[in-house]
Amino acid sequence: MGTPVTSDRSHERLHRFDAGAVGAWRIVHVAPVAGESLQTAERLDVHFPGDVLPSDAATPRWSLTGVSSHERYTTRDEKTALLAQQPPLGRASATCAALIPIRKNAAWWALTQDERRAILEERSHHIAAGMSVLPAVARRLVHCRDLGSPQPFDFLTWFEYAPEHADAFEQLVATLRATEEWRFVDREVDVRLARESR
Amino acid sequence: MGTPVTSDRSHERLHRFDAGAVGAWRIVHVAPVAGESLQTAERLDVHFPGDVLPSDAATPRWSLTGVSSHERYTTRDEKTALLAQQPPLGRASATCAALIPIRKNAAWWALTQDERRAILEERSHHIAAGMSVLPAVARRLVHCRDLGSPQPFDFLTWFEYAPEHADAFEQLVATLRATEEWRFVDREVDVRLARESR
Repeated sequence: MGTPVTSDRSHERLHRFDAGAVGAWRIVHVAPVAGESLQTAERLDVHFPGDVLPSDAATPRWSLTGVSSHERYTTRDEKTALLAQQPPLGRASATCAALIPIRKNAAWWALTQDERRAILEERSHHIAAGMSVLPAVARRLVHCRDLGSPQPFDFLTWFEYAPEHADAFEQLVATLRATEEWRFVDREVDVRLARESR
Repeated sequence: MGTPVTSDRSHERLHRFDAGAVGAWRIVHVAPVAGESLQTAERLDVHFPGDVLPSDAATPRWSLTGVSSHERYTTRDEKTALLAQQPPLGRASATCAALIPIRKNAAWWALTQDERRAILEERSHHIAAGMSVLPAVARRLVHCRDLGSPQPFDFLTWFEYAPEHADAFEQLVATLRATEEWRFVDREVDVRLARESR
């Protein structure tokens, strides 16, 4: 019976994005798309699961956290197609990145699963749009909405691509922002980055 | 541009269940169903969103936290049927309660949305089973899996019912535990409670 409630499974899904003076990625610009923007900063320090988090670093200008999680909308057929094409993060050629934090409104979260799926894919073709830029654009989605403390966004998406695919990436974000799904977005910030060592 | 990252939306979905010496609910028994159990304790202190959390209380024997969230599997038709029948928490007649924390295995979380829905409802009839005990049994589901720190369970379900509906509740849990969905449960504890003021 003796039962520690803390799990011995470490949290292997946590991602953290710290904007400040340090980090491998230089912040090129920070643009509000909907709602309040984020402050600009010089660099972004991206912490993937398993990374040792800095304990003595200066307080970042802002810090966003999320967890990778199970598939919310993707079907098996879509996942099979995605897995066949999606590239890893960290490619040497992928020196461009975007961090796009998004919050959806209460009306979205009040929808049921079938209603959200119908808007996201059957009518807005979100998954298909992401697939159309594979394998050029690598993507990692993390969720913030169900963290234990209030968060400014519901999810964060991180994209990496080579400069020659910048036009395809711009087309992707423009396409998505014109969809029915995006009518439920009440805060969105677009942070663009370039990889440079210091 | 000036942007505090902390949200001004308070976390209105947080629930906490503290087992120890205090609380409105007396713990009748704590039974392991799958995997490791939880320690027994005298009472359970249930904190719903908006409750003022005790700051000077003795450290509980165990404490489980989760957030209520959007519907994961329910369709609009199912939700409409549920809303028509589901009772509120806190009925004076509902002096019996159960707290059932559950963890599902990695195989479950690797499934896609359509696969999980097919197992949960089309083949295991989970939503229909819960509906069959309405309005007798009130229910609140909270999620722990995507909290920012590692958790011992993926979700917690809280049930309230009157003593005369205890048999119906036992039938519900027995039915669910015999389903295909339950083959993916790798930890489950069944905590039963009775409401008594001190």
